[in-house]
Amino acid sequence: MNKKIPIPSIERLCAMYQLIELLEKNGMEKVSSTELGRHLGVNANSIRKDISYLGEIGNCRAGYSLRKLRGYLIDNLEINRKRRSCIIGLGRLGNAILEYDRLFQSGFGIVAGFDSNINKIETIQTNVPLYPANEISIIVKREKIELGMLAVPAHAATESAKRLVDGGIIGIVNFSLAVIQPHPGVFVRNIDLVGELRIVSILSMLSKENILQT
Amino acid sequence: MNKKIPIPSIERLCAMYQLIELLEKNGMEKVSSTELGRHLGVNANSIRKDISYLGEIGNCRAGYSLRKLRGYLIDNLEINRKRRSCIIGLGRLGNAILEYDRLFQSGFGIVAGFDSNINKIETIQTNVPLYPANEISIIVKREKIELGMLAVPAHAATESAKRLVDGGIIGIVNFSLAVIQPHPGVFVRNIDLVGELRIVSILSMLSKENILQT
Repeated sequence: MNKKIPIPSIERLCAMYQLIELLEKNGMEKVSSTELGRHLGVNANSIRKDISYLGEIGNCRAGYSLRKLRGYLIDNLEINRKRRSCIIGLGRLGNAILEYDRLFQSGFGIVAGFDSNINKIETIQTNVPLYPANEISIIVKREKIELGMLAVPAHAATESAKRLVDGGIIGIVNFSLAVIQPHPGVFVRNIDLVGELRIVSILSMLSKENILQT
Repeated sequence: MNKKIPIPSIERLCAMYQLIELLEKNGMEKVSSTELGRHLGVNANSIRKDISYLGEIGNCRAGYSLRKLRGYLIDNLEINRKRRSCIIGLGRLGNAILEYDRLFQSGFGIVAGFDSNINKIETIQTNVPLYPANEISIIVKREKIELGMLAVPAHAATESAKRLVDGGIIGIVNFSLAVIQPHPGVFVRNIDLVGELRIVSILSMLSKENILQT
């Protein structure tokens, strides 16, 4: 790539990669930018612009070759790169994530779990090694863990994030409500169920009032 | 509001609402667009533009009043509107969501759970009424449920979404990998943990190569 690529384009290209895998499973070979846009909820122009960051991929009127597009995404974005991950907080959500098979299949296997409650560490049945929360920095460094998932209560999130950063983490997916202060070189993504419910609720309301720009 | 508002602005305004609540808890009264932008990872101009959709809120140089800003968000976006929700799929994730207290506190209380496995419906201990998956449409209509959360395997997602839509749902939060075909007037938000891990992984890589536009 020779142009700087904006974050929203990366978000869409990642969603596109997943869509391409699904379409290929369904036996499709070519796809138009219009069709990609319809699935991803953006217009065809944005799709073409996003794909243009990957280089010259051939005539888009004839449709993109799914195999080729997938190859470009893998080559340019290292979208299949494996990274070791860990989970902080072993409540209901943390436990569900701990046993989520798809993480391993996607190359982001969990190699450590942490909780401040020693009792949980001793009783949870899992193949993943579990440690007390005050060992986060040491273990992250020692096990070369690059990604951390935060499933702790909001009041514990800042401290947990600091420990991850001290251990040398490069990215955090934050399920807690806390706002994690950005550290240079560390990227944070927030997942918030209530926030998503709020958004669909508002979209529906604005759409009925005809003041939603689509 | 007299201008049409784009979806990304709604997303940012929802994140802003949550941030405002946190800042107010910490005793803050005013906030600048720069500060809001820093927390939300966007520039101050976007913040001011987003806020402008809510109407005239006064001089932004002196900083926005948090109380006033929160009021505008509530009045314009009905951000506190209560809606009844349901969960489809009672595996580990579905169970974690079923017991997630914050849904009730946020006005999106779960009033029904569904699974195709009758055994699960009979054994799960919860205060929420549980029903077999083939009753989704009937129950959604009868209980006036407006929001559905899909925590089913990908192969069951399309059928489940169809049942929700038949019942008159207005919004779906989809945790499955399946791409839910959009229905007119029904809004879908996808939550994908692997996708988020991929994004932070790529952001880190591109940032090191200095080809990330921030």
